[in-house]
Order: sequence, then structure tokens, then C-alpha cells
Amino acid sequence: MSTSLILLAAGQGTRMNSDRPKVLHEIAGAPLLVHAIRSGAALEPARVVVVAGHGADAVRAATKAWAPEAEVVVQADQLGTGHAVAQAREALAGATGDAIVLYADTPFIRPETLEAMREARRKHAVVVLGFEAADPGRYGRLVTEGEELLRIVEYKDASDAERAITLCNSGVVCADAGLLFDLVAEVGNDNASGEYYLTDIVAIARARGLSATVVRCDEAETLGVNTRAQLADAEAAFQARARAALAEDGVTLVAPETVYLGHDTAVGRDAVIEPHVVFGPGVTVESGATIRAFSHLEGCHVSAGAVVGPYARLRPGAELAEGVKVGNFVEIKNASLAEGAKVNHLSYVGDAEVGARANLGAGTITCNYDGVFKHRTEIGAEAFIGSSTMLVAPVRVGAGAMTGSGSVITRDVPDGALGVARGRQVNKDGFATRLFARLKSLKNAQKGA
Amino acid sequence: MSTSLILLAAGQGTRMNSDRPKVLHEIAGAPLLVHAIRSGAALEPARVVVVAGHGADAVRAATKAWAPEAEVVVQADQLGTGHAVAQAREALAGATGDAIVLYADTPFIRPETLEAMREARRKHAVVVLGFEAADPGRYGRLVTEGEELLRIVEYKDASDAERAITLCNSGVVCADAGLLFDLVAEVGNDNASGEYYLTDIVAIARARGLSATVVRCDEAETLGVNTRAQLADAEAAFQARARAALAEDGVTLVAPETVYLGHDTAVGRDAVIEPHVVFGPGVTVESGATIRAFSHLEGCHVSAGAVVGPYARLRPGAELAEGVKVGNFVEIKNASLAEGAKVNHLSYVGDAEVGARANLGAGTITCNYDGVFKHRTEIGAEAFIGSSTMLVAPVRVGAGAMTGSGSVITRDVPDGALGVARGRQVNKDGFATRLFARLKSLKNAQKGA
Amino acid sequence: MSTSLILLAAGQGTRMNSDRPKVLHEIAGAPLLVHAIRSGAALEPARVVVVAGHGADAVRAATKAWAPEAEVVVQADQLGTGHAVAQAREALAGATGDAIVLYADTPFIRPETLEAMREARRKHAVVVLGFEAADPGRYGRLVTEGEELLRIVEYKDASDAERAITLCNSGVVCADAGLLFDLVAEVGNDNASGEYYLTDIVAIARARGLSATVVRCDEAETLGVNTRAQLADAEAAFQARARAALAEDGVTLVAPETVYLGHDTAVGRDAVIEPHVVFGPGVTVESGATIRAFSHLEGCHVSAGAVVGPYARLRPGAELAEGVKVGNFVEIKNASLAEGAKVNHLSYVGDAEVGARANLGAGTITCNYDGVFKHRTEIGAEAFIGSSTMLVAPVRVGAGAMTGSGSVITRDVPDGALGVARGRQVNKDGFATRLFARLKSLKNAQKGA
Repeated sequence: MSTSLILLAAGQGTRMNSDRPKVLHEIAGAPLLVHAIRSGAALEPARVVVVAGHGADAVRAATKAWAPEAEVVVQADQLGTGHAVAQAREALAGATGDAIVLYADTPFIRPETLEAMREARRKHAVVVLGFEAADPGRYGRLVTEGEELLRIVEYKDASDAERAITLCNSGVVCADAGLLFDLVAEVGNDNASGEYYLTDIVAIARARGLSATVVRCDEAETLGVNTRAQLADAEAAFQARARAALAEDGVTLVAPETVYLGHDTAVGRDAVIEPHVVFGPGVTVESGATIRAFSHLEGCHVSAGAVVGPYARLRPGAELAEGVKVGNFVEIKNASLAEGAKVNHLSYVGDAEVGARANLGAGTITCNYDGVFKHRTEIGAEAFIGSSTMLVAPVRVGAGAMTGSGSVITRDVPDGALGVARGRQVNKDGFATRLFARLKSLKNAQKGA
Repeated sequence: MSTSLILLAAGQGTRMNSDRPKVLHEIAGAPLLVHAIRSGAALEPARVVVVAGHGADAVRAATKAWAPEAEVVVQADQLGTGHAVAQAREALAGATGDAIVLYADTPFIRPETLEAMREARRKHAVVVLGFEAADPGRYGRLVTEGEELLRIVEYKDASDAERAITLCNSGVVCADAGLLFDLVAEVGNDNASGEYYLTDIVAIARARGLSATVVRCDEAETLGVNTRAQLADAEAAFQARARAALAEDGVTLVAPETVYLGHDTAVGRDAVIEPHVVFGPGVTVESGATIRAFSHLEGCHVSAGAVVGPYARLRPGAELAEGVKVGNFVEIKNASLAEGAKVNHLSYVGDAEVGARANLGAGTITCNYDGVFKHRTEIGAEAFIGSSTMLVAPVRVGAGAMTGSGSVITRDVPDGALGVARGRQVNKDGFATRLFARLKSLKNAQKGA
Repeated sequence: MSTSLILLAAGQGTRMNSDRPKVLHEIAGAPLLVHAIRSGAALEPARVVVVAGHGADAVRAATKAWAPEAEVVVQADQLGTGHAVAQAREALAGATGDAIVLYADTPFIRPETLEAMREARRKHAVVVLGFEAADPGRYGRLVTEGEELLRIVEYKDASDAERAITLCNSGVVCADAGLLFDLVAEVGNDNASGEYYLTDIVAIARARGLSATVVRCDEAETLGVNTRAQLADAEAAFQARARAALAEDGVTLVAPETVYLGHDTAVGRDAVIEPHVVFGPGVTVESGATIRAFSHLEGCHVSAGAVVGPYARLRPGAELAEGVKVGNFVEIKNASLAEGAKVNHLSYVGDAEVGARANLGAGTITCNYDGVFKHRTEIGAEAFIGSSTMLVAPVRVGAGAMTGSGSVITRDVPDGALGVARGRQVNKDGFATRLFARLKSLKNAQKGA
């Protein structure tokens, strides 16, 4: 039986105090919306519909970039959650199986929880996700009898007895797709705020003689993001979980509290991550590699035994083979470094292929940009690039070749050859002594003036 | 009615274990003393007097640098708070209106609190700042009747009933300036420590038939700094508040706990601050700018849409216009970068003006110092500086001009021209192969020896 | 009376999920084993025996490197703590005085605690280290009567009354060396797990009419490391203590929570450590030096008044004399910088001696490696190295000499001379204008295609 996801992503998020739609604010480098979509991805949904509203164009663009399988529909006016779900009806025309309604600002629902909801559907027409609230406050309360959900009571409408209930409504709902839209169509807006509430479908279903039930999850899963402070809390929660998961998997995190992981960071067993390391999206670090302090990695791959940093920046497309060393103040972008290659100091290697065991001296720069086009540099195996060599791409330094320190290499250097381009050194005796004497006397004259 | 501030700043701070006077230890890059002066600044005081003692010369110098409007008087011997206040009498001769006594090691009194004290002066001759202590410990107790303050009792002199009082004395006092000095002149030192206590003025005032009252503040405002541990706590408290205030203002702080703000950092709405960023004093970041990880900013201005870092260092005088990009391992000092200029890698730009959309290649260095003097570099709009160009200042690269990679530019390059200075590349076939063979055989010979 | 230490270091540490033996996982850059050995070092032990098992070769190598005075014996099969201690018998043949059994995965026992155990041995044959457990859980309980330890009861064998005891067994034991081995020899393995338990020696001793007692320590001292999460907790505990100790000693730590100290970091009074600094092993920072943000120090020495960073990396062998400045994106390795020398920007100084007040411009690189050998660079006092100078070692720049910016210096520069090696600048009028026009038209052609 296939499943559809409906993600409610139309809210403005006024309390974020931001021009960016709330659901596009990020955790671990991925928008809240994407986290929510991924919660549902484990169900292998046949169709995913995002209901956008505020900032719909931006939401559509982000959805296309991150989850191209999803369809975006627009809720032009925000008339409540029931109304929002109704906007997905057309997009899901003909959908069979269940539909699950998720909230794009609620990134932490676990796949297991959604699985349990789908499972509960075998016996009940409508399944609502609830949680035992530590402080129920003004949440809607779930009134149950045995495993049956009788009704959802808004706090303001609740009796004292109902307010004493601690089982609260998360808003997440699962029902047969066709039924869901039928029920939503019956929801009215005859209430104080004049909105169409999705929660009303429970009462409508039960009035039809259908059964409803509650699946319980941990309160932490239902954490929604409404302010930047909550966003920071959600980021911290994500990071704490991700760091703990790596430690569990056998990764050494010397100071986990200073390491920021991307949403999809993958690190192998017995890899070492030193303090103060930042991972953007798309990073894989293999077993036994070492990421030293103050390193910054995005969209790259670090093989076993490689050592990165301190102060190394790996940008998208950096591919480090086994045993590669990338040292301090080095930037690697869109470049592959073969086994045992070394770039230890103060270098920029972009749009390049570096051969096995090649050694790039301090200050090596691939001049990959002519102001309009980008060009590639190729460095052969066991080549030795002298310090402060400029490699003006497109250019190739052959296997086992070397370049003289301080050379600007504009033509290919054959295998085993030396490429050198520099002026001859001249020493001018006494020059410095005379120069500084003159400069200092000038300065003294200025002071005297 | 004008107000005067008296800041008591004479203490040695023995428990700091430091040669530096306690009140010059810093929070968020500004001395404690300065934080205290600023608390009072909202009252727009007509006169500010700092009573220095230990390290008076250093305190005078810091006051001159940070709060030149303040006058420093010296309390040669530390004979108690009453004696300290008396030292300000001459400096405030003829002052009309209220005087407020603050403590330079108590940086967090809120302006609103001082305003409330001044307000309370309408009805009472002496106003004392008190707080409900979570753990009253050995604080002095405030004995009140209705809104009247009857007396201040030192802990050691307090009865059991008085010790049960949780309203404690902060030491901050407000009274008419003339009256304050009259009262202080009557304070004696006939007590165990032989000191003149400012607190005694309450009893003296009431003996004269004058009324006294208490204004209450949050205990956190009265946090004093006596040890380095307390200094670190105060720094943490400042940072937590400052980060929260930015978040409230719509700034995205991905990992607030790793961002250190200066005492005056200003950041616009929807700016993004990545993890591990340090702000010194004097930084303004405009709306929508991005400060990437591991950046360090002091005394600089970042305009809308600019992207800084990772690993960028902006030093005093760095002015980044809209859309400027300053990338990794780049230092900018006393230089303005016009709209859309880029300095993406491994560069030092100091004492320079960079034109709009100019592109400075990796390894660009402005050679601004000849060992004695500093000189300026000018780079025109849309100029293209080749990698590892040395710009030997004073020098100008014209608009739309370019420099050859690896060139040392000592003379101006006209608009639209190419400036180049480099040796011609020569390839020596087989040289590297022979050289490495010889070096390796030498090494083997050494090992064999 | 001499003392022997026996360190039990044979366990596999399965829950670490690591190929590395548990006791070689590190805190503050030193293996757990080494921390445990150092706890005992204050007793000035005559002999130290490490009982290795899993990963014995690696444990032996680490012991040789860190504590060469220790002997390593191998427990081929892990048959329990009693069996492990028995393996040390031969190594300690003829040892007189006490033997103390420590656990290599329990790094925080304080020297004072061990001293107290040795002291207690004056009156008792066997001394066991116990602690009042906040949550006694499944720890073994110590049953006492007055100061006499009657027996140690494993949790699973304990009566309800015994389980109510909160004084728990740490496993650390002290006894006369000869007696210890005699007692251990009597320990049997007739229990559920078929292991020889060291704790059984208490019962055996008392059966012989010998007295036993308990020395109490803080529970935090007995913290053992079994998982990576516990390792991270232990690291955090170490760091918190070490930071607090520095603050107590008068060091300014602006943001202590972001500073990671090595196991042996020494910092003088009134030194300042800014946020985000990492110390590896072997660092000494003298009084009044400043370590700015984002710096990384290992095996180096920073003298009074020196300023390091931000973004400075000092590697082993970096020796900074008084007043030296090492600035951003600078790496110093195996090099001494004399009084007042400056390396402020983007430089690599390795295998070098830099004279007093010498000034190394931005982009200075010592080319110390020819692909096989490393060579030294010498820079004289008050020398001025122009920006982007390559110093091809072995080479010497004389006192008061200077090098031209962008020069590759391959031969010595005499005192007071100028060494320069560069091409002459040529300006080609209109070249850039024509080039960019052509490139852009090419690009447009491509787009049009």
C-alpha cells in the first residue's frame, strides 16, 4: 500500500523576525522543510506534496533543489491547517493508500514513529500522533478511552478534568488519502479565529462511526520551531544526537561540543575529529582518517589514513585518497589528490588532479581563473612542486618532475624535468644598511618637523 | 535636574591574582569599569568621577581612552567605601542634583534600575539599591518598614530575625550630591575593621529625620567580579544576553554558544553568523551579510550581502561594501573594498583601496611597509590581480588593468594595461629525475654509514 | 619504604568500538594509561609494572614512549583482576614495601588519595580505596565496622541490608608487595564467571587474621572509561579542572569553555588566552604573553610579552623569545625567534633561526625541504625579509640585510646587503582590456552555441 506525505509549509513565522520563510531556516545545513520530508522518506512515499504559502517561490525553489520528487502547491490565503491540507487534494487526486500530514517546522519526528502510525491504521480510520507533555500548558488535549481517541479538545475549550490530561496533540495525522480529503471538506470555520482546523476531522470521523486512535511519541520529536531561539535549540538537539551517534559508531570526538556536523556527515570507525571542526553538507570521512582542529569541510571525501588540518578547508569536489595530507591554511576545491599526496602549507589547489605521492610546497597556487574561464591543472605522480609555484592553468607538471621555488609555470613540464622561471639573485652590498639609515633619518626629520 | 556618577574603582582585587587592577579586567573587550560607566550613561550624567586607588595610573589611562568625559580622583589609602566617596567631593564641588555611587567591578546594573532609583528620589532623601538574594549568606540586610528603609545591618551585627531577611544591600546609593557628601563626612570608622562604610549614611540620614527607601533589582544585576572564575562567569552572562538579543533582532546564529561578541557589536536582521566567530570591539555587520565559520573581526564594517570567511580576519579600518567577498586565510587591515570586490584566498590587503568588482587572486600581498614607513596601494575598479602578485606600495593598478601572476609590481599599471614582472620559464629535461636519484643515493649512503 | 605500582591495562574495551586498546585512548593528548601512571608518580614508585593484554604491542610501545621507566608484562588470557595482578609477580620479584594496584582506564585518582592509602598501611595490612556513591547501582559494597573493612560484597551476592550500603569499591588496593602476591595466589575462580577476583584478597587476608581498611575518595576520582561517551566526559572533566587551575593561577581565559589544554600545558600569571585556542602536549607560555583566538600550539615555548595569533600555529620546536609577534596564518616549526622578531602574516618558518627584531614580510617561506633532506635557514638580527621571499635552505640572510619582495634567495645575503632576484616589470598598454574583451566574447559565443 503506497503512502502520501502532505507537508504544511505555508506559515510566515513572524516570530523568526526574518525575510526568509520559516521552513527554509536551516538545521545542520538543511532547511527545516527538508528535515521534515526526510522523516517521512523512510516510508518510501509514492507522492510528496508541500503546501507553501508565505515565500512560496523560495519554498518551491528549495523543494526543487533538495527534494525534486516533491510537488509544491500554494495555499494563497492561510485559513488554517484544515484548509492547508485541502490544497493538496488535486495534487493527490487518485492517490490510494494513506496520507500523512506533517509540519515543515517540526523536523524531528522519527521514521519509526511514522511507521507506527501507519501500522495503527490497520485497525483505525484516523491516527493522531500524541505525546505526554512534561508541561501540557496550552496544547490541545487528546481524550481517549482505551486505545480509542474520543476527541481533541483545544485548551481554551477544555474542562478542568480535560486540562488535567497530559496526553497532547502534535497535529500529525494519518488517514486514508481519500477519506482525509472527505473529512477535511467537512471541516468548518465557525470558531473564534475563523480558521479551518485539521483537528476537527477526528470528531467528524467519529460522527461517521469511524474509529480513531493515538500513537505516542517522545515529546522531543514534536519540537516545533517558531523563534530563532527555538531554532538554535533545535540545532543544538540535532548536533547532540549526531555527535552521540558518531561516538557510538566508534568515532573519536575529542571535544564533541565544538564539532558541528552536517545533516548527512558520514564518518568511519576510529576516525579522529579534533576540537573546533565544522562540517557542511556532503562530507564522507573514512575509517581511521584524522580531521585536525579548526578544519572546515564541505562536499568532500577523505579516505582512510588521510590527515586533514589543522586549518584545512576542503571545499566541494575535494577528493582525498588514502594517506593524503592536507595541512594548515590550505584550501582544496574541486580537486582530486591521489594516494599519499601532500599539500602541507598555505596553498590553494582548485580544479586540479594531483598524482600519488606528489609533494606541493608551501605557497603553491593553482591559477585556475583567468577572469572569465576556469582551467584545470594536472600534477603527475611523485612530482615535487617548489614553494610558491604558480601553476597557470591549463597546465601539466609531469610525473617525477619538479618546479623551482617561486616559479610561474605557464607551459607544461615534462615527466622528470625541472620547470623553473625566475630572476637570478643579485646581492647589493651595503644597500640595506644605507636604505634603512636614509628611511630612519627621514622619519626623524618628520618627527622633528 | 542633572545627575553625577561616582564610580568606586580603587580596590586591588587580590583574588584576581593579577598585576592588572581588577576594574581593568575585561568583559567583551571592554574593562569592567567601562561597563559600569555605561550603565550610568543612560542617565546622561553631567559629571562622572572615577575614584581610583590601586593601579591608579592604569585606571586613569583606561578612563581617558574609553570615557574621556570622566574625571579620575585618587584615593591614596583604601579606608572604606565612605572614604572613597569622600574623595569625589572636590571634583563634584558645586554639583547640583543627585549623585549615584556605583562600583566599577559590578558591570551589570541596568539603566532602568538606575532610572528607578532616581525616580524614587522624588519621595526619599536616600535611595539604596537592594535585591532579593537566593542565598543571602553574608550580605548586609536591608531592614524596611513599608517603603521606608530603616537601616542596613551588616551580617555579623545582625540578629537572627534580621538574618532571616532576604532583601540584601547592593551598595549602590543615590542621594542629592551635596547631602551625600555631608552624610559621608559624618561617617566614622569606629568598627572592627576601622573602615569608613558608605552604608552608615542611611542611619545618619534617618537620625536627621530624612527618609530612605529601597529600589529592588534582579540579583543578577548586582553580580560583582572578585575572582577570575567570576570574571569568566560574567563574560558568559554578557555573551548569553548579547547572543539572545541578536537572535531576537532577527540574526541567525547557527551555534550561538561558539560566537563571541564585542561589547558594541551591531548586526543587522537576517545576517548569518556561522559557528566559531569572534568579534572584537567596533564591528558593524549589515543586514543580510554572512560571516562564515572561524572568522575574526575587529573595528570593521561589513555591508549587506557581503560574505566573509571562513577564516577571514578583518582588522580595524576594514570597510567592505555591498557584495564584497573576503575568503579563507585573508587579512584585511585599514582598507576599503568597493562593491563586489573579491579577495578569496590567502591574501594580505593592508592600507589599500580596492575598486568595485576588482578580483584579487590567491596570494595577493600589499607590501605596505618598507621597514620604517607604511604606504598605500590603490587598485582600480574591475582590475584583475594575478595570483601571488606583490604590490609594492605606494603603487596603483588602474581600472580594468591586470597583473601577471607572480609579479612584483613596483610601478603604477595604467588603466586597462597588463603589468608583469617575471622570469621566462625554462624546462630542463631529466633534471628532476637525476636530482632525486642523487639525493636519494646520498641519503642511502648516510644510512649505510 | 619504596612503593611499586601495578597498572591493569589488559582489557579490550569492547564498548569503545575501536581497534585501539582502550587504555591508549587519550585525554588531553595523553593516553589514559599515562594519566593513571602519573597519578601514582607522586609516590615516587621504585618500580612500575603495566599488565597488558589486548593490544599488548601497542601498549608496550606507548609505555616505552611515555613512561620508559615502566615495565610491561603480558596477561595472555584475561582471567580476572586477581589473575592480572599475579602476572606482575615475576617483574616485582624482590620488591620490598607496598604495591598499589591501579586501573589504566581510571585516570583521575589523585596523588593525595594514594598517599592516604599508603599512610593507612601503617595500621592495616590491606587498604582498599572506596567512595560514597551517589547512585551505588551495581558496584561492589564495602562492609565496614569502625575503621575495619570486613569484606567486599559483589552486588549480585549482596543482601538487602548490604545493598543499602553506599560505600563502594573502586578496585584500587594497597598492600605489602610480597603479601599481595601471596594473597592473590590464594584467590580462586569458583564463581559464576570463572574469573579470579582481586577483591577476594580482603576475605583471604582477614581469614589470616590480618586487618583491612578503607580509604575514601571522591567518586569523581574513580571515574572509569568504558565508552567513547565516557571518554568525552572524562576529557571534559579534565579540561574543566585544568582551566579552573589556570584561572586560579592568574591566567586570563576569556572563554574557558573553548580552550583545550594539553595534559602538561603550563601558562604564567597574567597571560591572556583568547577564545578558541587548542594546546597540544609540551607547551609553555610565560607570564604576560598573549595567545589570540584560533591559535594552535604544540611542543613550543612562548616567552613573556610575546603575542601569538590569531590563527597562528606553533609546532614542536617553536621557541619564541620575549616580545616576539607571530600573526595570522603563520606556521612556525622547529625554529627559534629571538627577542622582538616579527612574522605577522601568511608565512611558513621551519628549521630556522630568526634574529632579534628581524621582520619577516607576508608570504615568507623557508624552503627547508628538497624532497629528501631538510635544511636550515638563518636570518640575522634586524634583517628585513620582503614579502613573498623564498628562502631556499641552507641559506643565511645576514644581520641588517634585506631581501626584495618576491625574491627566491638561494645564496647567502651578507650583513647589511640587499638580496634580490626578480624580473623587471613591464607594462603592456591596453593588454588587459583586449584580453578580457576576447575572453568575454568567447564566453558569449559559447553561451550562444
